Amino acid sequence: MRSPHHHSPRNGDATPPPHHHHHRQYQSTVSVQKLRRFNWLILLLRLAAFCFALASSIFTVTNSRGPSSPHWYDFEALRYVFAANAMVALYSLSESGASVWEILKNATLFPEAFQLWFDFSHDQVFAYILMSAVSAGTALARTLKGSDTCTVSSAFCIQSDIAIALGFAAFLFLAFSSLLSGFRVVCFLINGSRFPH
Amino acid sequence: MRSPHHHSPRNGDATPPPHHHHHRQYQSTVSVQKLRRFNWLILLLRLAAFCFALASSIFTVTNSRGPSSPHWYDFEALRYVFAANAMVALYSLSESGASVWEILKNATLFPEAFQLWFDFSHDQVFAYILMSAVSAGTALARTLKGSDTCTVSSAFCIQSDIAIALGFAAFLFLAFSSLLSGFRVVCFLINGSRFPH
Repeated sequence: MRSPHHHSPRNGDATPPPHHHHHRQYQSTVSVQKLRRFNWLILLLRLAAFCFALASSIFTVTNSRGPSSPHWYDFEALRYVFAANAMVALYSLSESGASVWEILKNATLFPEAFQLWFDFSHDQVFAYILMSAVSAGTALARTLKGSDTCTVSSAFCIQSDIAIALGFAAFLFLAFSSLLSGFRVVCFLINGSRFPH
Repeated sequence: MRSPHHHSPRNGDATPPPHHHHHRQYQSTVSVQKLRRFNWLILLLRLAAFCFALASSIFTVTNSRGPSSPHWYDFEALRYVFAANAMVALYSLSESGASVWEILKNATLFPEAFQLWFDFSHDQVFAYILMSAVSAGTALARTLKGSDTCTVSSAFCIQSDIAIALGFAAFLFLAFSSLLSGFRVVCFLINGSRFPH
């Protein structure tokens, strides 16, 4: 487990460099501050994904108005939307916890290699699953628009649309955080650390 | 534009290194061979994605059997499946061409930074679009299973299922090549080259 503290003494030795090479300078002086900002950005993305996924799953689950109205559980695609969003909400919450730990302790919660690969692979898989669920939900919603269900209970269709839109927002945040965790993995593979140094 | 030829003289100077450091040795001696294998792997993935996406779009377009049978164009989700697969087939074909160029000339077709970012961003976007199309198609196919369409013309439903499965295979290859092109982008950001050196 490496921490940004490792950089401090080396930075002191290295600056000011005689050749003032742009790449080297960037790597040695900005990396600690960059690490901090990077971690905060990841935490924000995780929290945003958590909020939207939670909201989407709540909107899906509460989508039934008495016995005369259609029930969300009768539609396969809405069950999929709920399951995907609930999974992503749980995952994002636990990843937010790991991210807070990393900001506070300057080290990853689990051994670094495991944590980075775990984050990246799960981000990728969950982003694809969420995209898949949202698309299946959209296909259902568009089919329902042409059927009797929406004329009988338009509130049901509107609430489904909102749940799907919230799920799509959660997907966007998750996809962006998967880019960042992918960056961390490749940095680790090349440099043996989460960040360029 | 950098080419692996840059490494050759440096490797000659560097080997055998006195400390025999594993990381350094790996980077200096294996990188040319690794570059070659990496490029071939990308080319194979592009060609596989092209074949499956082309097959999927052909299966979707030819899915109509006379005026009595349902027509693929009447279903929004199947139009989406066709559009996504046709786009991915065209994109994968042109990327295969760029990949062949890179293997032959040891340099990217366009300026390196542009080419790497172009590849990665398009891989990501097209992978998500294809996943979305396949999921929407699956949602439609499962809805059709319960309706009259499949009892009247079961061949239509079977051919739709095959087209969707082929599209999913194309997605898998595209998603894997997006991982590789993401690796190339981060290498470029950290090292100023497509590969560790």
